[in-house]
Amino acid sequence: MPDSIQTVLDQVAKKVVPSMAERERMSQLADRLKGQVQTILDKAGFRGNVSVQGSFARDTWLSGEADLDIFASFPPTMERREWTERVLPEIRKGIRAKTIDRYAEHPYLEFHIDNIRVNVVPCYSVEKGDWKSATDRTPYHTEYMKQHLTKEMRLEARLMKRFMKGIRSYGAEIRVGGFSGMLVETLILHYRSFLETIVQASTWKPIIILDIEKAIGSQDPRAREIGSPLVVIDPIDPNRNLAAAVRDDKLWGFVAASRQLQKNPGTWYFFPPKFKPKTKAQFSKLLAHQNRDVAAISFEHAPIVPDVLWGQLLKIEKSMTELMTRQDFHPVRSTVWSDEARSSAILVELDASILPEVQLREGPPVSKMDDSQGFLDRHLDARDTVRGPWIEADRWVVDKERRILSIPQLVIAALKDPRLGLTVPDQLNNYFRQNVRVLENRKILALLGREGFDQALSEFLAAKPAWLKTHH
Amino acid sequence: MPDSIQTVLDQVAKKVVPSMAERERMSQLADRLKGQVQTILDKAGFRGNVSVQGSFARDTWLSGEADLDIFASFPPTMERREWTERVLPEIRKGIRAKTIDRYAEHPYLEFHIDNIRVNVVPCYSVEKGDWKSATDRTPYHTEYMKQHLTKEMRLEARLMKRFMKGIRSYGAEIRVGGFSGMLVETLILHYRSFLETIVQASTWKPIIILDIEKAIGSQDPRAREIGSPLVVIDPIDPNRNLAAAVRDDKLWGFVAASRQLQKNPGTWYFFPPKFKPKTKAQFSKLLAHQNRDVAAISFEHAPIVPDVLWGQLLKIEKSMTELMTRQDFHPVRSTVWSDEARSSAILVELDASILPEVQLREGPPVSKMDDSQGFLDRHLDARDTVRGPWIEADRWVVDKERRILSIPQLVIAALKDPRLGLTVPDQLNNYFRQNVRVLENRKILALLGREGFDQALSEFLAAKPAWLKTHH
Repeated sequence: MPDSIQTVLDQVAKKVVPSMAERERMSQLADRLKGQVQTILDKAGFRGNVSVQGSFARDTWLSGEADLDIFASFPPTMERREWTERVLPEIRKGIRAKTIDRYAEHPYLEFHIDNIRVNVVPCYSVEKGDWKSATDRTPYHTEYMKQHLTKEMRLEARLMKRFMKGIRSYGAEIRVGGFSGMLVETLILHYRSFLETIVQASTWKPIIILDIEKAIGSQDPRAREIGSPLVVIDPIDPNRNLAAAVRDDKLWGFVAASRQLQKNPGTWYFFPPKFKPKTKAQFSKLLAHQNRDVAAISFEHAPIVPDVLWGQLLKIEKSMTELMTRQDFHPVRSTVWSDEARSSAILVELDASILPEVQLREGPPVSKMDDSQGFLDRHLDARDTVRGPWIEADRWVVDKERRILSIPQLVIAALKDPRLGLTVPDQLNNYFRQNVRVLENRKILALLGREGFDQALSEFLAAKPAWLKTHH
Repeated sequence: MPDSIQTVLDQVAKKVVPSMAERERMSQLADRLKGQVQTILDKAGFRGNVSVQGSFARDTWLSGEADLDIFASFPPTMERREWTERVLPEIRKGIRAKTIDRYAEHPYLEFHIDNIRVNVVPCYSVEKGDWKSATDRTPYHTEYMKQHLTKEMRLEARLMKRFMKGIRSYGAEIRVGGFSGMLVETLILHYRSFLETIVQASTWKPIIILDIEKAIGSQDPRAREIGSPLVVIDPIDPNRNLAAAVRDDKLWGFVAASRQLQKNPGTWYFFPPKFKPKTKAQFSKLLAHQNRDVAAISFEHAPIVPDVLWGQLLKIEKSMTELMTRQDFHPVRSTVWSDEARSSAILVELDASILPEVQLREGPPVSKMDDSQGFLDRHLDARDTVRGPWIEADRWVVDKERRILSIPQLVIAALKDPRLGLTVPDQLNNYFRQNVRVLENRKILALLGREGFDQALSEFLAAKPAWLKTHH
């Protein structure tokens, strides 16, 4: 007998709800940091007001994996430039801990203190609706959730966050493109419980529109304009879709896993097995049995803010796979790996990584006289014409010598010739040009051992999501 | 200095206009055969009336390559079945010569007498418009052209027929799918001369509508219904498009060659060089330098009426290349060869004749719950699932073992499994099933030496039409 879903949820609940001792430790840390930041601001003469926000303030954080969000709100008269140039440097100086510069819509700081990730985020103190920056809504969100989430719903939200983390659909950061904490909590408010949410999500069809501040199920004309398959109206801002940044695969992964959890309940959706390291020989065997070619387009770069880095890597991935498709390579899947410091790679699986030496090129319809003459002038006596031109139905076609036969040739050609249309965003462009390497199949193993690479490669080769298991 | 186009036409005219002696020989043959057939019919008691039709009757035949069309017209009360069962057998018995059974819309006979091809064709004697069979229009066509074609235009028609033969666009038979004699003569009537026809054809854009019995250039609503890019209204039947059976490549080949003849005049458009036989070693080298794979799907069959045979072969070609495309082989070009007796083959050039052992299969959108469950049930634990399923954007996909990796495997599988959708027309079906062979690359050389095969292969490998030469 498999576990019933309620049994599973009971087991998960025990792990995600923090103990009194853990709450106490977090409270003390929160109070201490709030005080520290307030003192720093006061001393420097910034008229800022510090508060604790996020899942800790809303009591929806997960035991053992709390983030602490410390917000500093400033009068709307302050220039945003001052945050970057004066406020954040002052705070960075004042708090002694490992610090990472972060960037969402604007810069903020991440500290690691007592194994807790602490975000210190500037925002404006504004009236509802008069938003000056993306984080200005957060205090209103916290206020709203504190008012509306019951104790029971806070447990349901914790279950949902753990579920979404387990199936890799949680997190609004660009790297993930998943559900934000606010979005999860709004779903729980809307559907009242974890179970009802996954039951309802199982039947979601685009476009799904949820608006808890209005009548349930009312169609909203904004949906079409917004262009997302899932529209969850921000309860404190009717013009904002909380799910706007959720990528398709994360949305539908959640829907599919919601169904599967009901059909085949288990705790592994919430707590996926840890990655078991593999030997080089094991990876080598995996690659040999992939039955397709795998290429890693890898390059080193200076450290840049992770959110910016991931945004740019995803753009390179898209541009690169589109380029491959245009050039008759048949990319089947791709993913991005990065150590978030100096090293990143696009992994691509291809049906064809070596192309025939000749390429059929379609010309104009014969009925277009000038285009046809131009086509004949270009190809009839050209050195790189292999065969033809000839007429196929109503068009000219010609067989041309193919210049680009392999992925390494493709990347080199794309760097030289902008007409091939590979776009590499500015901040990575020079690094990419100067030290990009294409590693194919077994050569990819040279990257093993880099931060997170083994797991990324392993999951890429497996393709199937870890939560999708046979029902026994 | 290249020849001027007028110089070229003068040279061609000398060859295509029959001498008095040749005319005399043809006249005598025509009279003799007309009398013979009339006597056979009279003796057998058929109330038939024999006449000479076609290009000989219209004086538009080409020197050295005349056909003789002997028509026997019968009262509309005669059953069509009687033609096949009584009339044609009687004629076949009565005329001693090599005989081929032919079939257009209905059966007729072809004799070879004194190196002249003689067609004996039954038709109905009907009022204009009351057509009972496709050949009933012919006597009206002959009458119309005798009335309207001037002596000068008959020369122009001869030039055009020779041009179209030279560029392979002449002939209404299914094998060719080109311009009929009646169509050529109607074009000459419409444009008055060879030169004006090619000048005008150079600018043809679909849909071209010509109607000499109406105002020139008047748009005709029938064009859309008819669905052909070229509509030439039959001057004796406003409901009929003389160009309905002209295939796209023949139409646009004519248009392209018309332009090229003006740009780069020469006699080779009219009299292409004879095929120079190649050695096996030469073919072997050609195949090796093709840079793609070539497959011949070859089979033996009982002799069937050539027009029926070609119709069925073209259907097999279409169905076979569509099947290849559906199965991820990338056919680039194809053609049909037949000795018109017992042996035929589909020749295909492919970008990929060996496929990877794994095949990505796209499933339903995740939002379709039942389809998704069905997809998971089918693939999650299936033995032939290589990887996945996983979610790509909003859809399930899965990597399946590919069963069909090569063209021989494809043909075998398609014969066994009707769901693959290969359709072989009835009359060839059993022969195809029982003895189809797939020959690839060098193995194709086994077919060398068969009637017309060497030339067909040579032209297929070259791809470029012979008339398309560099302008020096």
